[in-house]
Amino acid sequence: MKIWQLPSVLLLLISSVISHPHNLFEYNELSEYVDSHQEEYVQTLRDWVAVESDSSDVLKRPDCHRMMDMTAEKLRAMGGKVELVDIGVQEDLPVNVKFIIEGMEETGSNGLDAMIMAQRDSFLSDVDYILISDCGWLSRRPALTYGTRGNCYFFAEVEGPKQDLHSGVYGGTVIEPMTDLIGILDTLISPSGKILIPGIREAVAPLSDEEWKMYQDIEFDIESYKSKIGVSQLMYNNKVDLLAHRWRYPTVTVHGIEGAFSAPGTKTVIPAKVIAKFSIRQVPNMDPAVVKKQVTDYLNSVFAKRKSPNKLKVTMVIGAKPWLADTKHPLYEAGKAAVKRVFNVEPDLIREGGTIPIAKTFEDVTGKSIIMLPIGGFDDGLHSQNEKMSRYNYIEGTKLFIAYLHEVAHLKKN
Amino acid sequence: MKIWQLPSVLLLLISSVISHPHNLFEYNELSEYVDSHQEEYVQTLRDWVAVESDSSDVLKRPDCHRMMDMTAEKLRAMGGKVELVDIGVQEDLPVNVKFIIEGMEETGSNGLDAMIMAQRDSFLSDVDYILISDCGWLSRRPALTYGTRGNCYFFAEVEGPKQDLHSGVYGGTVIEPMTDLIGILDTLISPSGKILIPGIREAVAPLSDEEWKMYQDIEFDIESYKSKIGVSQLMYNNKVDLLAHRWRYPTVTVHGIEGAFSAPGTKTVIPAKVIAKFSIRQVPNMDPAVVKKQVTDYLNSVFAKRKSPNKLKVTMVIGAKPWLADTKHPLYEAGKAAVKRVFNVEPDLIREGGTIPIAKTFEDVTGKSIIMLPIGGFDDGLHSQNEKMSRYNYIEGTKLFIAYLHEVAHLKKN
Repeated sequence: MKIWQLPSVLLLLISSVISHPHNLFEYNELSEYVDSHQEEYVQTLRDWVAVESDSSDVLKRPDCHRMMDMTAEKLRAMGGKVELVDIGVQEDLPVNVKFIIEGMEETGSNGLDAMIMAQRDSFLSDVDYILISDCGWLSRRPALTYGTRGNCYFFAEVEGPKQDLHSGVYGGTVIEPMTDLIGILDTLISPSGKILIPGIREAVAPLSDEEWKMYQDIEFDIESYKSKIGVSQLMYNNKVDLLAHRWRYPTVTVHGIEGAFSAPGTKTVIPAKVIAKFSIRQVPNMDPAVVKKQVTDYLNSVFAKRKSPNKLKVTMVIGAKPWLADTKHPLYEAGKAAVKRVFNVEPDLIREGGTIPIAKTFEDVTGKSIIMLPIGGFDDGLHSQNEKMSRYNYIEGTKLFIAYLHEVAHLKKN
Repeated sequence: MKIWQLPSVLLLLISSVISHPHNLFEYNELSEYVDSHQEEYVQTLRDWVAVESDSSDVLKRPDCHRMMDMTAEKLRAMGGKVELVDIGVQEDLPVNVKFIIEGMEETGSNGLDAMIMAQRDSFLSDVDYILISDCGWLSRRPALTYGTRGNCYFFAEVEGPKQDLHSGVYGGTVIEPMTDLIGILDTLISPSGKILIPGIREAVAPLSDEEWKMYQDIEFDIESYKSKIGVSQLMYNNKVDLLAHRWRYPTVTVHGIEGAFSAPGTKTVIPAKVIAKFSIRQVPNMDPAVVKKQVTDYLNSVFAKRKSPNKLKVTMVIGAKPWLADTKHPLYEAGKAAVKRVFNVEPDLIREGGTIPIAKTFEDVTGKSIIMLPIGGFDDGLHSQNEKMSRYNYIEGTKLFIAYLHEVAHLKKN
């Protein structure tokens, strides 16, 4: 079964106003409603997480479809209309809400960009602001997210013999693709985390004094971060360096190698064609098009020095730009007020080390402002084993959305 | 499903004399019988290869069992007795034949050594000579094999965070196990094939003038070897260097990495624990116990220089010694005569780059002499895609066994 033979799960759910059990958009009443119906909310989440809708596992594609059906059903039950075209605007709330729900985030959300572009003059034409919640808090303190790193994802393929060979029979006579691949991968980054590809570090915007001060004030405990990850030592041992390298400096990760032996046990194979998967997180002022050329040129030159007869092919399969918002924008003021109302604290203003490519696309296509309003906990373990959501973040987060829509409604009226 | 939860396929088939349709052990008649029943032989092989008895694929374990049952059935149909204890000796042929058939060769034949040792004073007690046919010719010219390389198979495990992490969220702050692993793997062997682990090369027996001359006379066409593998350039460009590095020098192969992302597509994971699988082919006068210490000490010292907080664990999971026979032994004289009879040429005297650990075990346990008599073709593609056996090698090879038993019978009589 090939991944490209499977249907994707991209689904555009366009909903008109969600009618709530209360007709009045009154924060306190709605907040009480959330509390008193907490078990129903939890049951819904329980039903949803029971569906293994992981788009990175091709065998679970039917679960992704099921997840979409369940989501659509839920929206319909709440009075939303779910279909593939814009159904216009109705009034019984202070703001109208439209949803775009997408189920292939783990594997790069293929097709989502094109859909957004295609909907610019229809579904998206009357949208004033865009809210994205695909992110999380940094600590137990609520946060607003104002930046994300981009990501350039590369395949480096080394191809040698026409088929896999037995290492006993052929070992010593052939130049092995895996040796070549390891040789070039080892030139990407130093043990201390310095990126060795020429030009990458030079493109990074310098850290301003203001930024440094902001990082200093953010609630972040290094010891609990270490303990959460389960390591005895991090790449840096002070808060500002750690946050800065998480949010506003690039890094290289080698994710793995396709085509080599990866199962448990032993196998005496010389793999004929091996494909390394690695990515470089993007930050202002890097440009994926430039990075593509820098990486390709560098790896080709490193490979040439090996004088190997094998063939190297470097391709960039994802080139997502970083995104950065103005934290003084009214949308962020509304966010701060909403956090204050629900949690009675000021939010931390944070960035996200990961990539949410859709933010940049929304911005470019619509020209509208974006806010990222996370409700995910700092220890949710995104994309990892035992990913979870706490009841506190789920329920209080639901209230945060209520408060935020309330604040945005005021914005609109003013 | 864990590999160690599955039953292995090791099966000891002890057969008494195989009764042949002809009572007389007459080479010419038997050779004609083989020719006239060629279709039956081919059908048998067809039935056998249709069973996917690949012990390296845990899901195919039932096929391995089925293969054993079919083999046992075949031996029974030919008059052999198949059971787990020695049933004594009968007479209607000039030599008695016992078989040991084992179905887990791809994955290291776990348990076979122990069984051989356990059978030393029973099944193996009255055996005079041992013949192994798990090898192949070097060219279209028939060959006798007088040596094999051993193999030391290593796992190098680097463990960091307690679970996989998202490369966006954590990349830049953690010291990634995959970077460490690539860094140490890159120190094993140079682009030109030189092993960099101290002490390994020094242990290798020097190439004698006699050996050099023998290699010079062997039929081996570099161009067809290149074309068979599908490469434009080999590690060496002359026959002697190529054969020597295939048979009597060690080499390092990195087979792959367990625990990293290895599927098609993209995934933005920082793998928490990665295990490299690599092996070093063993030749006289290397000693696996010494190699284990050399590799472990070297990798630990290379790793220590990285100052990584991650944990490295190096284990040797297979330590198979090389094997070398005396080509002047009467068994080899019988082999030469048999080849001459069937093919009317002198065999090439060759070695095998791969490992047949059981040879060394047989030798150590029984103290008896061993011959390796291959009938596999030079282009069979062992353990690779589209592995095959040609009709010519299968049918003429069957005759070779007949002729060989004939020659060995003479040996016995003299």
